[in-house]
Amino acid sequence: MDEEGIGAEIFALVADIYPICRSITGNGVRETLRRLGRHIPLTVHEVPTGTQVFDWTIPREWNIRDAYIADDSGRHVVDFRDHTLHVVNYSTPVHVRMPLAQLRQHIFTLPDQPDLIPYRTSYYEERWGFCMAHNALMALPDGIYEARIDATLQDGSLTYGEFLHPGDSDEEFLFSAHVCHPSLANDNCAGLALLTRLAARLAPLRTRYSYRFLFAPGTIGAITWLARNELVASRIRHGLVLSCVGDSGGPSYKRSRQGDAAIDRAMAHLLHHAPGTPTVTDFVPYGYDERQFCSPGFNLPVGLFQRSRFGSFPEYHTSGDNLSFVRPEHLASSYRTITAAIDIIENDQRLRNVLPKCEPQLGRRGLYAAIGGSQAGPSRSMAMLWTLNFADGHHSLLDIAERAGLPFSEIAEAASILEIHGLLVPASG
Amino acid sequence: MDEEGIGAEIFALVADIYPICRSITGNGVRETLRRLGRHIPLTVHEVPTGTQVFDWTIPREWNIRDAYIADDSGRHVVDFRDHTLHVVNYSTPVHVRMPLAQLRQHIFTLPDQPDLIPYRTSYYEERWGFCMAHNALMALPDGIYEARIDATLQDGSLTYGEFLHPGDSDEEFLFSAHVCHPSLANDNCAGLALLTRLAARLAPLRTRYSYRFLFAPGTIGAITWLARNELVASRIRHGLVLSCVGDSGGPSYKRSRQGDAAIDRAMAHLLHHAPGTPTVTDFVPYGYDERQFCSPGFNLPVGLFQRSRFGSFPEYHTSGDNLSFVRPEHLASSYRTITAAIDIIENDQRLRNVLPKCEPQLGRRGLYAAIGGSQAGPSRSMAMLWTLNFADGHHSLLDIAERAGLPFSEIAEAASILEIHGLLVPASG
Amino acid sequence: MDEEGIGAEIFALVADIYPICRSITGNGVRETLRRLGRHIPLTVHEVPTGTQVFDWTIPREWNIRDAYIADDSGRHVVDFRDHTLHVVNYSTPVHVRMPLAQLRQHIFTLPDQPDLIPYRTSYYEERWGFCMAHNALMALPDGIYEARIDATLQDGSLTYGEFLHPGDSDEEFLFSAHVCHPSLANDNCAGLALLTRLAARLAPLRTRYSYRFLFAPGTIGAITWLARNELVASRIRHGLVLSCVGDSGGPSYKRSRQGDAAIDRAMAHLLHHAPGTPTVTDFVPYGYDERQFCSPGFNLPVGLFQRSRFGSFPEYHTSGDNLSFVRPEHLASSYRTITAAIDIIENDQRLRNVLPKCEPQLGRRGLYAAIGGSQAGPSRSMAMLWTLNFADGHHSLLDIAERAGLPFSEIAEAASILEIHGLLVPASG
Repeated sequence: MDEEGIGAEIFALVADIYPICRSITGNGVRETLRRLGRHIPLTVHEVPTGTQVFDWTIPREWNIRDAYIADDSGRHVVDFRDHTLHVVNYSTPVHVRMPLAQLRQHIFTLPDQPDLIPYRTSYYEERWGFCMAHNALMALPDGIYEARIDATLQDGSLTYGEFLHPGDSDEEFLFSAHVCHPSLANDNCAGLALLTRLAARLAPLRTRYSYRFLFAPGTIGAITWLARNELVASRIRHGLVLSCVGDSGGPSYKRSRQGDAAIDRAMAHLLHHAPGTPTVTDFVPYGYDERQFCSPGFNLPVGLFQRSRFGSFPEYHTSGDNLSFVRPEHLASSYRTITAAIDIIENDQRLRNVLPKCEPQLGRRGLYAAIGGSQAGPSRSMAMLWTLNFADGHHSLLDIAERAGLPFSEIAEAASILEIHGLLVPASG
Repeated sequence: MDEEGIGAEIFALVADIYPICRSITGNGVRETLRRLGRHIPLTVHEVPTGTQVFDWTIPREWNIRDAYIADDSGRHVVDFRDHTLHVVNYSTPVHVRMPLAQLRQHIFTLPDQPDLIPYRTSYYEERWGFCMAHNALMALPDGIYEARIDATLQDGSLTYGEFLHPGDSDEEFLFSAHVCHPSLANDNCAGLALLTRLAARLAPLRTRYSYRFLFAPGTIGAITWLARNELVASRIRHGLVLSCVGDSGGPSYKRSRQGDAAIDRAMAHLLHHAPGTPTVTDFVPYGYDERQFCSPGFNLPVGLFQRSRFGSFPEYHTSGDNLSFVRPEHLASSYRTITAAIDIIENDQRLRNVLPKCEPQLGRRGLYAAIGGSQAGPSRSMAMLWTLNFADGHHSLLDIAERAGLPFSEIAEAASILEIHGLLVPASG
Repeated sequence: MDEEGIGAEIFALVADIYPICRSITGNGVRETLRRLGRHIPLTVHEVPTGTQVFDWTIPREWNIRDAYIADDSGRHVVDFRDHTLHVVNYSTPVHVRMPLAQLRQHIFTLPDQPDLIPYRTSYYEERWGFCMAHNALMALPDGIYEARIDATLQDGSLTYGEFLHPGDSDEEFLFSAHVCHPSLANDNCAGLALLTRLAARLAPLRTRYSYRFLFAPGTIGAITWLARNELVASRIRHGLVLSCVGDSGGPSYKRSRQGDAAIDRAMAHLLHHAPGTPTVTDFVPYGYDERQFCSPGFNLPVGLFQRSRFGSFPEYHTSGDNLSFVRPEHLASSYRTITAAIDIIENDQRLRNVLPKCEPQLGRRGLYAAIGGSQAGPSRSMAMLWTLNFADGHHSLLDIAERAGLPFSEIAEAASILEIHGLLVPASG
């Protein structure tokens, strides 16, 4: 897939959706999906409040118009219009006047990061609250303050979007990004934007697998999708959850619960050869929606791709996760890793060397250095030698790349040349 | 089991039996078993000299009344009444006068540890000898000395004791400690005392397994027991040999010959989470009576638990292994490790998550933090998430604890809470 | 096998064949085989030019009488008689006069090792060229030079030699060394000389396996032998390719493609206990003739033994690989490793402890220290305890040696003593 300018393209989409106040339900999600839908034909689903999805129930819909804390003079000392994080997500409506000492029980700050606004939610317990910089709170004089949250929490629906790119097979590769976080750039405007751009570039291509892109609220959204798509889920052969794909850390990959699924091997292979400080970790039942895809009743081969791992960077879940924190080059790097994973999943295969007894004479085919004896050895020929030796019908190209310690792309290219010269055939052939 | 004051209790029993001169046969063993028998109803067995036990024969019985080396003036320069180690264990009786130069051929010292008395034995070759501090020997003037060992070596019997706590099943957990060493506190008054106190506390409890406590002389005692109890041995599902459980080192565990028996996994798990400098080593065919239990014709799942490993501390097999060398807190720590192992063996089981599709909603059951978004994550909920995700009927609680990197006790507690809430059932249910 | 003076013997043979100008065909190979044949009854095979061997064709035969570069005054500034490396191996005949600037396109040097002559070949593309020290080239004044290579490249044959030592079984242990390199002492006069001396000492012995020694040109020679001996190849149970066995590095072993063949385990075991800086590496499809033996259509259990690994030492494929670079003591050390490998392959077996229940009483058989209690433990008895415990019919002696971390020779010796005492019998007995 064409990668020219992809970083800037993804970044522009991140910036487009960053200001929206999203939550697990409500108009923020709808507006976000509308903007993603400018780039791909997204199907938007609405699931009514009260619908049972496995052990859960679709909650009421939350929408917010305005919120502020005002001092005696009417000055807004905290204003939702400045930052969507200022309100505890899913706060019930409130309009009160109370002394600061009392109001502080509804205010969340980060004393250790006193200039940042924290991100807090209260989805499943009715509360109201504000979030603000600790230093700003400390600067407030005592007195009576007005606190207002002009929000509604009422029956409505949960919204999610999906796009399916049909391939030659109805076996699927699932990509999923959570759409419920408000103004947090890396977590997860980056994932939403990257997948949208990826889907757009993938759309015109013919592929072996079908590709599904899911943009749903975290936890309840993934649970809702799974509850409504058990049959589809049974066709998922590979999957990746994406979040935090725009910062300078990582890259990192968390294996699926299966641990040795094709996607696990492909991602581990790619990260082994990746620049930066790649880490591959085993599945843990905490994180993003891989928790649901990898619940024991589904146990799908779905891993998590990130740059910095969630919770590992100080900007995580604070106002520090803003448009300065994600960079086009990191978005582009994440994009390339994902497309390389698609390359492996699409192209890995078992081939068979048709001249398995001794080496074929590569030299007379122009595939081997003519002057022998130098210490360097035929470094450019090594990928061919590995491929010929292990193309025995049992080892796939990824097996060979892992055995050789070479990137899959080099083995795949060598295999392609050898196939052209008639030295390899499909293993079943 | 109640652990209050357990260290002091065990230490008191160590002190009680420390002065006795034990050997592989004789009254020292009988007196020791009599004192242990004050705390538990011990069955004492006597096996006559000459009895064939596999490749071995029960030796004659050794008893000693007195022993000394006296100088010209009649002064006792070495006296068995000062320390039981002064006589080579199993020495034949002797009463001679000879020059020091000649007598020295019968005297063992430790030139590198010149203030300590070594422990030496000669069970299977008839000899006599004395052990003493090297500095004390060096201080002796030349001259004629009287050496007397007032001992008997004659037909009698080999003595061992055992206590069986019956459980719901006749499958057994064997605990074994050698009872043949004279005044060596860590090796093995500590093991004898710990197991006696453990047996006493276990006695009133209902257990899944039956628990057998064996106090027998090293090597020949274990061989004798196995020769007389082949059918019982076939019911041993778990076993631990204990020695050196009272010093400040370790803890350490030596795996059974099987290497991956349940007891091996349980002990490795506990030591992984233990304070100190825990070490887990593979089976080697040298050490204590696990040598016999793990001989290829039995190959029982019996490991060795110690604090410092035998031979690894300078006090080993010297008069330095005395009542100052073992401490109540180390005895208590060893006790807690053993009872934790029993907890694992008794309680490990496979459970099944009855809501395996996606996560159950822990929040509405009061099992999950209500305010989301903080970096810390639901650390107290992690044990529940691990248990729910891997309680698939295939993973046992210990499997889950190992996978999660959490102590078994935390997983077992989480499982218990989840079972109460109806989220888990026994895998067979 | 007697090892007295073996290093000096092998070195003398290295020195004898070092000056000969070998190539993949021609009289250099014949003369080399003639000299090796003074020590063992070598069968020499001639395979005509044009013969098809798998994907390859036997090339024309190359012979060289003389070669030089002469300056205006007729002085030979480069002379083949000084060093066989001065001519690019397999150069076509030429006799020209040309300016130095033009001639330099046919001259190979090593700018980074300016005093050494490189080794270069052009087997499968017709070229001519000279090799010389970079400093010597730099010292040449401009001017017209005469370049002459008095060589022939015409139909003839490819030559290889082999020697078969028949054993009790027609299953074979193959030893192979390439015979095509000109004056390079370590690579591979050393391998040729070591195997010749080994074959001579093995010849009078009765062995379980048959031993085949193959001295063939690299690549094309091995391919030729395999093409003509497919049935023999199917009987190869173990094999080693030898090269670079005389320098001070290593030792090193490269596993066969199978990776866990008996020879792989034997060599890894020996190198684990070897002095120096032993390394064991996995198979890679580049190196010496193990490439052909381990091609997927054969997949024979043939590894590569070397001291320094090819390409890893600065003298590799240069005039620095001369008679000063190989030493008798290193040749002797390599020889001992190979004979130790033969010992393992010949003698590894599964035995059965006839008294598997508890330990046999070694003491009454005089096999155990009589005085007990010392810290050292029965270090001399450990090999016996390991062997008795694991001689269960499932573990071979090599298995036991690996489990015990002891050299095979110690376990084999212990097993021999225990067999004499009737405690072990063959597992099938």
